[in-house]
Amino acid sequence: MRNSNRQWILKKRPVGDIKPGDLELVESPVPVPGPGQVLLRTVYLSLDPTNRIWMSDMDQYMPPVGLGEVMRAGTLCVVEQSNNPMFKPGDVVSGIGGWQDYALADFAMPLPKGPVPLTATMSALGMTGATAYFGLLDIGQPKAGETVLVSAAAGAVGSIVGQIAKLKGCRVVGIAGSDEKCRHVVEDFGFDACINHRTADLAHALKRECPNGIDIDFENVGGAVLDAVLDNLNLNARIVLCGMISGYNATGAAKGHNLTNVLMKRARIQGFIILDYFPRLPEFQAEMASWLAEGRIKYDVHVVDGIENALGALDLLFTGGNTGKLLVKVSDEP
Amino acid sequence: MRNSNRQWILKKRPVGDIKPGDLELVESPVPVPGPGQVLLRTVYLSLDPTNRIWMSDMDQYMPPVGLGEVMRAGTLCVVEQSNNPMFKPGDVVSGIGGWQDYALADFAMPLPKGPVPLTATMSALGMTGATAYFGLLDIGQPKAGETVLVSAAAGAVGSIVGQIAKLKGCRVVGIAGSDEKCRHVVEDFGFDACINHRTADLAHALKRECPNGIDIDFENVGGAVLDAVLDNLNLNARIVLCGMISGYNATGAAKGHNLTNVLMKRARIQGFIILDYFPRLPEFQAEMASWLAEGRIKYDVHVVDGIENALGALDLLFTGGNTGKLLVKVSDEP
Repeated sequence: MRNSNRQWILKKRPVGDIKPGDLELVESPVPVPGPGQVLLRTVYLSLDPTNRIWMSDMDQYMPPVGLGEVMRAGTLCVVEQSNNPMFKPGDVVSGIGGWQDYALADFAMPLPKGPVPLTATMSALGMTGATAYFGLLDIGQPKAGETVLVSAAAGAVGSIVGQIAKLKGCRVVGIAGSDEKCRHVVEDFGFDACINHRTADLAHALKRECPNGIDIDFENVGGAVLDAVLDNLNLNARIVLCGMISGYNATGAAKGHNLTNVLMKRARIQGFIILDYFPRLPEFQAEMASWLAEGRIKYDVHVVDGIENALGALDLLFTGGNTGKLLVKVSDEP
Repeated sequence: MRNSNRQWILKKRPVGDIKPGDLELVESPVPVPGPGQVLLRTVYLSLDPTNRIWMSDMDQYMPPVGLGEVMRAGTLCVVEQSNNPMFKPGDVVSGIGGWQDYALADFAMPLPKGPVPLTATMSALGMTGATAYFGLLDIGQPKAGETVLVSAAAGAVGSIVGQIAKLKGCRVVGIAGSDEKCRHVVEDFGFDACINHRTADLAHALKRECPNGIDIDFENVGGAVLDAVLDNLNLNARIVLCGMISGYNATGAAKGHNLTNVLMKRARIQGFIILDYFPRLPEFQAEMASWLAEGRIKYDVHVVDGIENALGALDLLFTGGNTGKLLVKVSDEP
């Protein structure tokens, strides 16, 4: 066990790209659990585009991280010491924690030992998979034969969205940021096609790969990518607005979108935050666990070692430098 | 009966504002009905913002008006001559017709004589009322106590939306383009408040008049008005995207909108065209007829005399020069 607790503190709200000094890595003594408390050792941090939103003070779906506070993340932790009869050292728990080696908790969500790696519980079987599952199935409501467009198709969420859409009998077209990602999406995740938005004429490529138009857009990117999609909507199309990473580092007013075709095509844009589906996580976990067991869903995990590298790792999400679920490994798995 | 047929022909697709010469008024002989046909005399033309869309060749919900064709409109006509046993001279019919004195038809939708004026069947009891009714109730799904925001609140659709929302127990806030319209909306249509977007600081005024946020936006305007609304959405807000008149005369790419708050608030933007609800018109007509009979819904009709003034009249919609349902009276009521 370490003899200090490293913590990333939010010092300034980033303006545009995150800059050195916006967060600071500080060290303090390892906290001591009080009565009823457990001491948690962080094993994995989940890094997600929404972390950038938490750093800002924009109107959002949970309170922003306060200045001077530890940066927030989804975490997987192991119980190191316990003054709580519900937990014993070695238990694995998950939840919303922080960018730090150690944390105290009065309560934590135990993670039952299962046949899948711990990293799967932080990706395909965790919030990432749940986001893909409920966003596509509950909001998108795919029907066999429909065309599903997935932006950030090689990403943690997008790659699973596309595979579920294929299981439902849809034509699935991805958009990704490199030829290598596109190849991966088609060959390994089974998408019907994938467009490299950095080199293709997006408008032209969408018409070619979606000859029957777009019925569902699972939107992770926003910006110019979303605008090209909006131009190709079918009647009664559904846009699952899951994320708009292209704008998260923007300064000033975010780039806008032309909604005229949403009107003409009686399309639906539905904002979507996975928090709302927490009561229904068990139905997702049951189905995804069986898909994983049967090898019907694949997933990538991109692990960066060391909490000191967390801030640099986060940047990979915005440069397209990661492939699949981005995790920071803070300490060894139990 | 006239001895010539005046017709407005679409000569050029307008770029930006409609210009003289984009449409041309020509005269030709009154057509002669063939076997099974009726000769219809136009009484009223309905002028609507969507007419501007029909003049363009953008991707839309019905084919655009072809160059060289008579400009299209919702019409109320009287049967002048009939070679069809289903119709006799003097029958009143309504449907989608043209900017012309006379038309031939093989089929027309008879309009039963009722207790309301013919102009009501072209406004509160017609497509205008149906648009307000289904858009608010079916897509917006208002619940008592919610806040409903209506743009173009003094307009034909908006004024009825607000009154139905009041019948459902909502707080109703309008946006209109003059103090006089705002007074009319509050005093005569019973809105709780109305904001003059030409003089108010819209962001500030929306926060003042919608202290609990916006649950439903019935959107007729788009542009800066919609952007201000998007900033004030409540969780699970619904945006009924009925029209975006602020962009219909735009050249180049339409102005965009910031969808970030749609994501954060899990709001829904739903495009809406009244055509989709034609099978359900009877349920609207029954309820609206009783509301009108009980005096619970009021409506304005703005009648411009003379088909030669149709093109100039259409411009009133874009300058805010009309109040309520805009009709062109082409000939006398039967």
